[in-house]
Amino acid sequence: MERKHNGSIRIGIVGYGNLGRGVEAAIARNPDLTVAGIYTRRDPAQLKPLSAAVPVHRMDSLADHADRIDVLILCGGSKDDLPRQSPELAARFNLVDSFDTHARIPEHFAAVDAAAQAGKTTALISAGWDPGMFSLNRVMGEALLPDGATYTFWGKGLSQGHSDAIRRIPGVAGAAQYTIPVPEAVERVRSGVRPELSTREKHRRDCYVVLEAGADADTVRETIVNMPHYFDQYDTTVNFISAEALARDHAAMPHGGFVIRSGNTTDGNKQVIEYSLQLESNPEFTSSVLVAYARAVHRLHQAGQVGCKTVFDVPPGLLSPKSAEQLRAELL
Amino acid sequence: MERKHNGSIRIGIVGYGNLGRGVEAAIARNPDLTVAGIYTRRDPAQLKPLSAAVPVHRMDSLADHADRIDVLILCGGSKDDLPRQSPELAARFNLVDSFDTHARIPEHFAAVDAAAQAGKTTALISAGWDPGMFSLNRVMGEALLPDGATYTFWGKGLSQGHSDAIRRIPGVAGAAQYTIPVPEAVERVRSGVRPELSTREKHRRDCYVVLEAGADADTVRETIVNMPHYFDQYDTTVNFISAEALARDHAAMPHGGFVIRSGNTTDGNKQVIEYSLQLESNPEFTSSVLVAYARAVHRLHQAGQVGCKTVFDVPPGLLSPKSAEQLRAELL
Repeated sequence: MERKHNGSIRIGIVGYGNLGRGVEAAIARNPDLTVAGIYTRRDPAQLKPLSAAVPVHRMDSLADHADRIDVLILCGGSKDDLPRQSPELAARFNLVDSFDTHARIPEHFAAVDAAAQAGKTTALISAGWDPGMFSLNRVMGEALLPDGATYTFWGKGLSQGHSDAIRRIPGVAGAAQYTIPVPEAVERVRSGVRPELSTREKHRRDCYVVLEAGADADTVRETIVNMPHYFDQYDTTVNFISAEALARDHAAMPHGGFVIRSGNTTDGNKQVIEYSLQLESNPEFTSSVLVAYARAVHRLHQAGQVGCKTVFDVPPGLLSPKSAEQLRAELL
Repeated sequence: MERKHNGSIRIGIVGYGNLGRGVEAAIARNPDLTVAGIYTRRDPAQLKPLSAAVPVHRMDSLADHADRIDVLILCGGSKDDLPRQSPELAARFNLVDSFDTHARIPEHFAAVDAAAQAGKTTALISAGWDPGMFSLNRVMGEALLPDGATYTFWGKGLSQGHSDAIRRIPGVAGAAQYTIPVPEAVERVRSGVRPELSTREKHRRDCYVVLEAGADADTVRETIVNMPHYFDQYDTTVNFISAEALARDHAAMPHGGFVIRSGNTTDGNKQVIEYSLQLESNPEFTSSVLVAYARAVHRLHQAGQVGCKTVFDVPPGLLSPKSAEQLRAELL
């Protein structure tokens, strides 16, 4: 960390799975940020950060480390970790999380806002790419073309949630599920015709499944393709493969997708806005977004803006390490 | 304007060319905004707005209309109008302009900021798509992927500046010039390889030219393809056509382009972010952006944020007519 200048923003990483490792890697690429420490529920001695210089602490040390940390980045899961951690930690720390259960965002916001207002901290929730960059593009597309329609396509990419759902089926030893946008649907949307598309018309699902010894392939296949919500509304392909093939060919975590806003400015003139991501590593990209928003949170806090925020509340210039003057001169 | 609710934001349109008409059309698609008036240097009686209900005034009436207007949208040109009008009007009005001479943005910002600070107004400069949406995507791409490279491609689209340059050549009666991204260059950039591309490798230029009677085609062609800065660094095609064909086939003003950020989050993982626009009407889309930013300027002013702003300073949520709660529940 000697290479960092003195004024660098000190980040605490809470949790060290794929997202936490991605945050550490992203901070290494941002000279104005430094890792103050990694906080874990595991035994710190067993955890190997990318850089040996980064200190690893027990989660419960956090309470004593408030003066070492400018912003926490919470790298836990949306189901069990963040609903509890974000409000609890927002009482004393500025923070960023990637809470991604869309339907529960209003209640998460309310809980974090109450804690942050009381503690006079700044907490940004639901950063990442969806929610996050895709949300920004949905809002801006609608604002720029009010007479229009917005389409979000995901993939091609590995869906952690759907892979997990398959793994819970009896007889399944391992699985990877890819969400794939249907090319014909994407092309129709890009043409500006504003089609109405069913769930089935927008995406298909490809599954790679390893069976346990003695499991019946047809039973597993039927259980997958008929699983409510997860698969029953999609055209789903199930491929049975070996454990070796799963480990060899499906360990990467690519993802991405498109947000397309198609609308008219006058009856005769169609306009199409598209934002797309092609990600070789979904967690590393999410981590990079979290890190840029941690910079913005630090600046918002310095400007006295406390409470819970989302990507909709952050002036984009605050994401950049460059000054407002530099941004106007170089990038406007 | 009866359909507008009482709390609507009152917009004054300054100048009524393609951009001014586009602003009027865009406001008609935004129920929370209303046209307070159109201000013109021409004879108001000669000007025909899209809606007969919109009042048209002489430019010099503006001084007396400050209490009727929340935000002015300046629809003049960057060469002669805005450098004078924006600072002058920012002394008394909130405003948005589309100043697009990239190299002169810092001095334009300084002049407008001095006037807006003194007058306690809020003035946003250089809104549109480039500068504007493309600038936002350049800043965000760089902030999210600091180890990367940014590429901006324009087109396929009609370039007003290049068409004008051709029209000034002796012997030319009319012209349309299209800027076209080279597909091979776009594909290489999308693949994430971060190529170094020369000006010639990125875009080509197609010209459709009407000659005056007796003009020499070869002389005109040579003058075009060798014109410094405008054409000499590009592969340029010159097609001579009739005045009828020019009017029939080249009256539309399509444009668009791509901002692509390609970078690595770790050495092994490439990530590609792309923002693209396909516009059937360049001025109407620019107008739509100006109108959304006028809404944001009104809100920034209400929040006490005075001085000169750019798109980098505006929280994206302020562009939308929806409340922060609605945005979080519906679009995050």
